[in-house]
Amino acid sequence: MSSPFPAKPRIAIIGAGALGCYYGARLVKAGEDVHFLARTGRAALMARGIRIKTPTERIHLRKVQVYGSPAEIGPCDLVIIAIKATANDVLKTLLPPLLGPDTMVLTLQNGLGVEEPVADIAGANRVLGAICYIGCMRTAPGVVECSFPGLMTIGKFGKPAGDRTQALAALWRRVGVKCEALDNLEAQRWHKLVWNVPFNGLAIIAGGITTDVLLADEGLRTLARRLMEEIVEAAAKFGHEIPRSFLDLQFERTAKMGAYRPSSLIDFAEGRDVELEEIWGEPVRRAKSVGEPVPRLEMLYWLIKRMLAARKPAKKGR
Amino acid sequence: MSSPFPAKPRIAIIGAGALGCYYGARLVKAGEDVHFLARTGRAALMARGIRIKTPTERIHLRKVQVYGSPAEIGPCDLVIIAIKATANDVLKTLLPPLLGPDTMVLTLQNGLGVEEPVADIAGANRVLGAICYIGCMRTAPGVVECSFPGLMTIGKFGKPAGDRTQALAALWRRVGVKCEALDNLEAQRWHKLVWNVPFNGLAIIAGGITTDVLLADEGLRTLARRLMEEIVEAAAKFGHEIPRSFLDLQFERTAKMGAYRPSSLIDFAEGRDVELEEIWGEPVRRAKSVGEPVPRLEMLYWLIKRMLAARKPAKKGR
Repeated sequence: MSSPFPAKPRIAIIGAGALGCYYGARLVKAGEDVHFLARTGRAALMARGIRIKTPTERIHLRKVQVYGSPAEIGPCDLVIIAIKATANDVLKTLLPPLLGPDTMVLTLQNGLGVEEPVADIAGANRVLGAICYIGCMRTAPGVVECSFPGLMTIGKFGKPAGDRTQALAALWRRVGVKCEALDNLEAQRWHKLVWNVPFNGLAIIAGGITTDVLLADEGLRTLARRLMEEIVEAAAKFGHEIPRSFLDLQFERTAKMGAYRPSSLIDFAEGRDVELEEIWGEPVRRAKSVGEPVPRLEMLYWLIKRMLAARKPAKKGR
Repeated sequence: MSSPFPAKPRIAIIGAGALGCYYGARLVKAGEDVHFLARTGRAALMARGIRIKTPTERIHLRKVQVYGSPAEIGPCDLVIIAIKATANDVLKTLLPPLLGPDTMVLTLQNGLGVEEPVADIAGANRVLGAICYIGCMRTAPGVVECSFPGLMTIGKFGKPAGDRTQALAALWRRVGVKCEALDNLEAQRWHKLVWNVPFNGLAIIAGGITTDVLLADEGLRTLARRLMEEIVEAAAKFGHEIPRSFLDLQFERTAKMGAYRPSSLIDFAEGRDVELEEIWGEPVRRAKSVGEPVPRLEMLYWLIKRMLAARKPAKKGR
């Protein structure tokens, strides 16, 4: 079997968007050895570092290690994928130079089917996925506003969490990120969809609304619950049980978030890529593959797809 | 029983929008005795008359009889309701002075549940409904562009067509409107919904698109058909059989319409009232009342409702 996760791992982060900067800054601040691989905004990061603002603290890292190519970084113990799944084509080039024999690859990407392309490149056995329950937004290169740091759950692709997964969760906790290693990564992904599918999706197609507007609209609130119920039914077909109380919890938590703009709405409004297939398309396809009708989810998927097609060509960035 | 429909009926038309002007102009041009009851645009109609442009002809009526109150018109043989159902509150005041013992009232309004309020005021036995398959748009007061004159079917509220309904259909044909009297008005209304629900509705919520854009989008085209199928299933529960070939026909006809802007989209875009309850809300309620789930139709209803709520206050007009 592979060796234990090192006490002082060499870490690469692919992408310096909101998540890459936020989690990277946590690691750097705690003294970890972090190497950022960034394309757009690299000059700004090199010149001015990273600034994070959370409800309780401000972090300013004047100097971070930023690179333009993976060869400059070389093999690491941990690679964190923090680019959008929609930009995954670049992984074929970016990932291999960062891999050693025991490198773990953790993807922070949203939705279903995000581990598979990583596994195709790096091998399934070293792939982990993180589900990030966090509200944060990059306001400028290297500048991130985090409205709630939330928590992260991690799991191994296709397998229960082992020692190295537990060690990685411990690392996150050490640097100030609430993190738990769970045994069923796919089940976690379906859980996350319960929020992402309705709130991100309806925000886009109902005219660019914040979560408080959605919750105050009786029709949309009911629709959000119906969409959640479709997710629950589909997840059940794959053996993942999501209790009804989890749905109630989503509404309670969202009510506390105020006028929150879901990340997909921000991406949509700013002309950036939206994780259409990962959050909406793939769940539809998986549900239908096991005979579970998801009429509202499918309708939402088609409507978002149309809204994206009608937009000007998206700006790319990582 | 009531007397036969007179050879030269006295006709009142409530509302001088696209439909009121178009059908009114047809009647006037053929020499019928027509009295328009109009609020907004009355001065323009009095000063400049009505102009109609169709693919094959131009009609200009320099002088039409226009009134500001129903008392100036008095009892008629036929009253045509050509205001939006959303403005129906005014009928309580406008309708009674136009009614004699044998007056027939024909509503041109769209959707389900539009005869009931008229019946409440005028009595069910004299109410007829028309389903207008027409493409026309008022571009200025008294000015109407008619892209396809189509046809009209009429029926009696809650009863088979009788002699007077047949006589009214004959009148329409005499003045150049393709018209047929059919026995089941409610069945006709469900048929019309097969087009109106998806094409008017999706045009609004998919970003203000014309029918050609909808048809070219694979997801939306499939969604339109699913919505039609929900209408078919709901109508079947009420005993109205709509054959699948009727659905195919809608797509074929719509393809020939080119970049058509459905009337509800025009209303929406121009800040006017949209027949939300008549076209989407009432079908949802009727379907659910007989246990027919209409998930996509209901979702569409909620989304349009939200889009309307987010608009500036609507301009009123008749």
